[in-house]
Amino acid sequence: MGNILVLFHSKSGNTAKMAAEVAAGAARIPGMEVRLRSVAEATAEDVRWCHGIAVGSPVNMGLVAWEMKQFWDTKMPDDWSKLDGRIGCAFSSQGGWGGGAEITCQSIHTILVNFGFLVFGLPDYVAHQFNVHYGATLSGEPREPREIEACRRLGQRLAEWVAVYVDGRKEEHPLTSGRPRFPW
Amino acid sequence: MGNILVLFHSKSGNTAKMAAEVAAGAARIPGMEVRLRSVAEATAEDVRWCHGIAVGSPVNMGLVAWEMKQFWDTKMPDDWSKLDGRIGCAFSSQGGWGGGAEITCQSIHTILVNFGFLVFGLPDYVAHQFNVHYGATLSGEPREPREIEACRRLGQRLAEWVAVYVDGRKEEHPLTSGRPRFPW
Amino acid sequence: MGNILVLFHSKSGNTAKMAAEVAAGAARIPGMEVRLRSVAEATAEDVRWCHGIAVGSPVNMGLVAWEMKQFWDTKMPDDWSKLDGRIGCAFSSQGGWGGGAEITCQSIHTILVNFGFLVFGLPDYVAHQFNVHYGATLSGEPREPREIEACRRLGQRLAEWVAVYVDGRKEEHPLTSGRPRFPW
Amino acid sequence: MGNILVLFHSKSGNTAKMAAEVAAGAARIPGMEVRLRSVAEATAEDVRWCHGIAVGSPVNMGLVAWEMKQFWDTKMPDDWSKLDGRIGCAFSSQGGWGGGAEITCQSIHTILVNFGFLVFGLPDYVAHQFNVHYGATLSGEPREPREIEACRRLGQRLAEWVAVYVDGRKEEHPLTSGRPRFPW
Repeated sequence: MGNILVLFHSKSGNTAKMAAEVAAGAARIPGMEVRLRSVAEATAEDVRWCHGIAVGSPVNMGLVAWEMKQFWDTKMPDDWSKLDGRIGCAFSSQGGWGGGAEITCQSIHTILVNFGFLVFGLPDYVAHQFNVHYGATLSGEPREPREIEACRRLGQRLAEWVAVYVDGRKEEHPLTSGRPRFPW
Repeated sequence: MGNILVLFHSKSGNTAKMAAEVAAGAARIPGMEVRLRSVAEATAEDVRWCHGIAVGSPVNMGLVAWEMKQFWDTKMPDDWSKLDGRIGCAFSSQGGWGGGAEITCQSIHTILVNFGFLVFGLPDYVAHQFNVHYGATLSGEPREPREIEACRRLGQRLAEWVAVYVDGRKEEHPLTSGRPRFPW
Repeated sequence: MGNILVLFHSKSGNTAKMAAEVAAGAARIPGMEVRLRSVAEATAEDVRWCHGIAVGSPVNMGLVAWEMKQFWDTKMPDDWSKLDGRIGCAFSSQGGWGGGAEITCQSIHTILVNFGFLVFGLPDYVAHQFNVHYGATLSGEPREPREIEACRRLGQRLAEWVAVYVDGRKEEHPLTSGRPRFPW
Repeated sequence: MGNILVLFHSKSGNTAKMAAEVAAGAARIPGMEVRLRSVAEATAEDVRWCHGIAVGSPVNMGLVAWEMKQFWDTKMPDDWSKLDGRIGCAFSSQGGWGGGAEITCQSIHTILVNFGFLVFGLPDYVAHQFNVHYGATLSGEPREPREIEACRRLGQRLAEWVAVYVDGRKEEHPLTSGRPRFPW
């Protein structure tokens, strides 16, 4: 069994829609309990509860939004150095391609690494010229199938790593599970 | 007058095509001499010669290609700390959206900042949901008009900054030149 | 003449002390007007006023503090795409060596690049094994001479670039001014 | 049982000395087989063999050295997307504090994330104002006890995560093992 937290901030609603798809992807793996929480409603207890976390933010001036940063700076300091070894990943919605979503995912990775999380990306391609190497990155909201699948695949992989590493279910390993990682 | 160097590495030819468009964009500004050089043919003298540089690399494993890194590590060390104040920017071709081109541009910025260059990105949008905030980033080669314009705009901006800051031509400032920065 | 803004956030007081030294360094170059402002007191008008900016934040969970991010996310959006071509740099105080100050400076660079600023670091060494390559980075507060000089040198270089590029005073160029950049 | 690869490039010998200490730290955890390999001697088989990897490079112009990048770009492409789920971390020797070692560790993280590794840092402090948050970062070679311990702690943590996650030995978890993580 495993606990997955999808933690997000959203202003326009785009990142919130991504978060819902990430949560749906995590639920593809049996035995996962998934919590979907905005930074406004999330508490430190949610982070303590989880084995794996997906953190999402719109690109705001090239980085994670201040509201998401505020969450980690103000709600989480007492838990710093007590959360090591959880598994983490990132997602972000930008205004346009080249708009900073990769760099925003990287800034989320930095926060998670600081807290002792193990962070990952996906070698997977979810469609031709569409991948998830440093987290799920979209322009705007998830609409096309490849955009929806990018978010779901991220959540799925997070749940796979939790299943394999926390719950000891080696059959869920993405390289041997038989689930497709590439559309070709 | 100003000297612009477009320095690139390319394996598939995609980044080479971007480089040619970046060079074409630099030539939009009067009085610029533009050199287009691959890392195989470029020398330290080319970098010493330039007032502004655009550096391009394919995304290789999330970063600048080793061939481009080798250029700076092996051909340029004697010039380190003697090049400060030149102006620099980055471009990159990736295998697919979300594939690391922003992070590769960031890695190029790091090299340039290390050498004392002033680096920049562009607030410009060149089309709906298509921008150049951390350099020109494409998936594959430049084909669509917005992809070509992304590359050209980067070169144009580099030449504008060289014109304004090195050559003292304040009328070329992108905020007051009358040239469009947004398609709307 | 040139206008320099030193914009900082500080909780413990360490980054505030760095900011005061950065401001003192900027004042080494004749003809500079220097404003020292915390994010609590600064306004968008201060940023509009400046030709060069030094932005400082403590390392908080590996990145710029949420209070600094909030400044750019909430006070500055109306000025986005209207500030291009200003010159910017970064400084940061961390809890210990290896604690994230370089990465925090990089996150500040990302914000500034997003706004169209030209950002820089310094090839300078200010003492043996002590440099300022990606901004001024300290552990704790500036106490030793090399720590104070790291901050001042950053401010000085910012003012030098403003003098050279904005004010056309080529004699202030760090490579030809005769001022020492290395202690050996 | 677990397999640990310490992969490094070194020119001056400083990073090689760090690598030896990282390997010694990994050997603190029972049941680990540790390989210490320079990029000149390492092969793709070494990476395939390992469950956990520590990658070290000197800071060269702010990033991983071209020789280390060349290893991943030329020796490893056939293994891309076949290595997911291994555990990885980074170390780097720089010329001076503020010299780019954190950013170099980040560039190593990017390569490892691209290959599907789970990457981590350490909340640990190994001495007053001396930590390992984004990997082990030193100026010069490891000489002082705190510098040696920074390297060893990184290797130890890598071996701990391999023991916990790959080998199922939950008693090796750093938060509950009883081993000190802070000197106070």
